[in-house]
Amino acid sequence: MHETTVAAAGARERIAAHRRRFDPLFAAYFDRLAAAPGPFTAGRFPARCVELLRDQSLRGGKRLRVALLHEAARLVTDAEVPGLDEAALSVELLHTHGLVHDDIVDDAPLRRGAPSVYYAYRAEFPGQERTAVGLAVLAGDLAAFLSVQVLLEAPLPDGLRLALAQEQTRASAETVLGQFLDLERDVPPLPGDDFLHTVTEFKSARYSILAPLRLGLLAAGEDPEPYAGELRRYAVLVGIYEQMRDDYLDLFGDPAVTGKPVGTDLRDGRRTYAVNALLAGVDGADRKRVESALGDPGCDDATIAEIGALARRAGVDERLRATMLRYAREASDEAAGWRPRWREEAVSFFSALPLWSVRRTF
Amino acid sequence: MHETTVAAAGARERIAAHRRRFDPLFAAYFDRLAAAPGPFTAGRFPARCVELLRDQSLRGGKRLRVALLHEAARLVTDAEVPGLDEAALSVELLHTHGLVHDDIVDDAPLRRGAPSVYYAYRAEFPGQERTAVGLAVLAGDLAAFLSVQVLLEAPLPDGLRLALAQEQTRASAETVLGQFLDLERDVPPLPGDDFLHTVTEFKSARYSILAPLRLGLLAAGEDPEPYAGELRRYAVLVGIYEQMRDDYLDLFGDPAVTGKPVGTDLRDGRRTYAVNALLAGVDGADRKRVESALGDPGCDDATIAEIGALARRAGVDERLRATMLRYAREASDEAAGWRPRWREEAVSFFSALPLWSVRRTF
Repeated sequence: MHETTVAAAGARERIAAHRRRFDPLFAAYFDRLAAAPGPFTAGRFPARCVELLRDQSLRGGKRLRVALLHEAARLVTDAEVPGLDEAALSVELLHTHGLVHDDIVDDAPLRRGAPSVYYAYRAEFPGQERTAVGLAVLAGDLAAFLSVQVLLEAPLPDGLRLALAQEQTRASAETVLGQFLDLERDVPPLPGDDFLHTVTEFKSARYSILAPLRLGLLAAGEDPEPYAGELRRYAVLVGIYEQMRDDYLDLFGDPAVTGKPVGTDLRDGRRTYAVNALLAGVDGADRKRVESALGDPGCDDATIAEIGALARRAGVDERLRATMLRYAREASDEAAGWRPRWREEAVSFFSALPLWSVRRTF
Repeated sequence: MHETTVAAAGARERIAAHRRRFDPLFAAYFDRLAAAPGPFTAGRFPARCVELLRDQSLRGGKRLRVALLHEAARLVTDAEVPGLDEAALSVELLHTHGLVHDDIVDDAPLRRGAPSVYYAYRAEFPGQERTAVGLAVLAGDLAAFLSVQVLLEAPLPDGLRLALAQEQTRASAETVLGQFLDLERDVPPLPGDDFLHTVTEFKSARYSILAPLRLGLLAAGEDPEPYAGELRRYAVLVGIYEQMRDDYLDLFGDPAVTGKPVGTDLRDGRRTYAVNALLAGVDGADRKRVESALGDPGCDDATIAEIGALARRAGVDERLRATMLRYAREASDEAAGWRPRWREEAVSFFSALPLWSVRRTF
């Protein structure tokens, strides 16, 4: 499909262009904070926090959220849209907040190839676990409040500032509730795929996809409310295949490519899409082997590799790929339905993104 | 001073009246959340979180913040002021957020006579420390976002909603930075009283006193900006004597009255106003004894009692009381200066509050 390939290459380039524009802006934001008179400069601890938030934020990946936000505005106009910079800062600060707190909850030493904020503090306060937890909790809290503040103080008309802040704060609260559901997922009774979809929607789709879409439209002067249903459908479909890809890679990924070990979800007893598919796809002795590995932190690499092999034999990997593709196609079709109401180049971006995103997985 | 006594009794009654009005409103707010369709009702974990936040919030004390907010509006008018209810909810939700996260940092089993949110989760997930920390972090995060959301969605004109949310979000970020400074305080080099004042201002005075004052004025239609300096001075003076009282009671309080053990700050190595006064007020063998107790979690009750006794012999308690009274008098004078610009009955409240507040300590 030549046409899809061209559109996909376009999506990749557009995402990269948004990132190149955003990253220096993000760096400058933290530099302004660090230099502002007041509590930021009243002691060493606030300054160190800003530094750690800055470092982690700037180690960010492809900035898909920023791209979604800008492309959403381009659904409506190709003119410069005031407020997008602040909205992008807000979206990424909220993401930083979530990652910092996640890494406390997951006891994660690494984040994006360097120590997590929590582990950076642990290294700076050896033997003072409480202090390290406390500082990391506070660092995440600061990012959360800054995420709202950057919108509230944007140089925009009152009504727009308010609408953007409402949108983002609602998504923030929903994300926290999604994280509760994510923890609930791993506690019996076992979740069905419907519950996993609810977790995905609230834990990630709303703040990572839906909020950037709605913020971009709002900033460009388009009321998203009449299109609430279709925007949400697109966001949830994208959220689901993105989550499935993460879950798939944890079981079937190549550590040399992903930079992450396999089997973490299995060892942690996490009821991911991949783990659910695995349990549904094997029986007898194989299923027993999976069940005994699930939630066993001491499960060795050889066993994880054997489970990967038996999953492949049972076609679990293939079925997961087919499911991801199905969700990506549905997302793509949903976006294609935005023609001709919205601008073609941006509609193409949203329509090409899912298939590009899923296909680069395998 | 008969006049002061009458004013003080008035302050106490007014605070109680605000609390009686606010508490059912706070309960109804949580009940609405718990019943709202969406993520709050999508699983057991979000519902349990709302329940724990509700319980801790409703075990609240005298609601001084709510009183300050309402009295600030009454500086300007005695008419009903729309937005005060939402501002009060916001102020108390922010306080709940801070307490929930504080109790993780301090590993505090109790909060207001019942298990802290963190310890409630520990009891519900025995042997799963990470899960308990994670749930408590999330509970605090939720309260933080709700604190902003309740203002953003208040039924008020855009400009006012925005101004209230800006005020509160700025105070929220400053409070987090104040908590960083609070942790920095206990790490060498030793802090002077100036640094302690900065900690107090940002950790508590801004969100507990200054923000309620400014929110109340804003809601009542008064721009607080021309009075920013005097409002801040009042807030900092009140913040300082309030903090000194807490610190004083930790060393000299009667557990039968306060409901808290003495010596916690000493054992935790916290460089409070009282600990600083103690170190400055004793020398020789007495000072050695204090220094060896400071930061020793195993320090026994007999040693704490001895330190209390030697501190009293050295007049440390009396000096601290004199200092508190001095700050309270300055705060009182500051508020008295608001005559005749603002309404007499509310000015009297703000002027009477500090002396009433300090005198009920001893």
